[in-house]
Amino acid sequence: MARTGRRPGQTQTREGILAAARNQFAARGYGGATIRGIAAEAGVNPALVHHFFGSKDQVFVAALNLPFNPAVLVETILDGPRERIGERIVRLFLGLWHEPETRAPFLALLRSVASSPEVAHQMRTFLVTAVLAKVSTALDVPLLRLTAAASQMMGLAMVRHVLAAEPMASASDDEVVELIGPVIQHYIDG
Amino acid sequence: MARTGRRPGQTQTREGILAAARNQFAARGYGGATIRGIAAEAGVNPALVHHFFGSKDQVFVAALNLPFNPAVLVETILDGPRERIGERIVRLFLGLWHEPETRAPFLALLRSVASSPEVAHQMRTFLVTAVLAKVSTALDVPLLRLTAAASQMMGLAMVRHVLAAEPMASASDDEVVELIGPVIQHYIDG
Repeated sequence: MARTGRRPGQTQTREGILAAARNQFAARGYGGATIRGIAAEAGVNPALVHHFFGSKDQVFVAALNLPFNPAVLVETILDGPRERIGERIVRLFLGLWHEPETRAPFLALLRSVASSPEVAHQMRTFLVTAVLAKVSTALDVPLLRLTAAASQMMGLAMVRHVLAAEPMASASDDEVVELIGPVIQHYIDG
Repeated sequence: MARTGRRPGQTQTREGILAAARNQFAARGYGGATIRGIAAEAGVNPALVHHFFGSKDQVFVAALNLPFNPAVLVETILDGPRERIGERIVRLFLGLWHEPETRAPFLALLRSVASSPEVAHQMRTFLVTAVLAKVSTALDVPLLRLTAAASQMMGLAMVRHVLAAEPMASASDDEVVELIGPVIQHYIDG
């Protein structure tokens, strides 16, 4: 299966798989779509989808142009002392808003989730499966508590960056970490 | 100024004021719009706007068809023991999602805030001025902490009702109160 050189048609195949993936995720959501179904719609062998992208969550990230890699996100969250995980998570997300390359797509994603039931349908299982369930298993924290932590982070993004309500919109990263970090830590410590 | 009987043209005047208010709030936001400016655009005396609606926040609620009265909201939040305010706020908001008359417009509002910078512009000062600043003064809690509490409530609505991510979407009200109530209490107690 390993393809090293560039073959003519390889880019079209990749784009064809991504187009099929967007259709399948839109129709079935992250939970319902399968590599097999995406391959069938693209008219390729499922092994080729794995070859180009790896796992289903990587296909999802590529098809939806997501501004983060969930595997890297989970690794960053878990890498460090557990008693500072709240602070680490808040800093990680605040950082996403400082870089224009992640800020714009992150804002677009938040807006689409809120305004489009189709995007919400695509995202709902992905967020849980590719990020929260992995952190839940690694830290032995109930998934409900992690969805609560995720809700605080999503609400923070809404109030600070979408609604831009003061004084939260202009608070420094350190102030926000001091305020929200202990809450995320509380959700994780129980 | 007190008008008791129904006069022909009174409904049109009221509708004219609301249309002018929607324009003014859209153009200037809640903070920038004034009763005087709304009256000027509607071609009526400012006293008539006060007569029909009362304060600027009541004009705002009527013009945007908001699913809650901020004065009643603040009263309900403050009415009861302070050590149970976190629980009270979470129960109050969970209740909004049980009634179809408030659920649908609340969902629409959340979606519009996220997807439309214009609606966000209109809402940002309103939320702070008509709700959070009043609670802040009454309880002597810094406004930043109340925007943090508001961010948790907004994120909860997003994850539970818009994204509908499990297990948060199907958790019982009691489970959610037990999980989120202490966090809201923490933001208020400091």
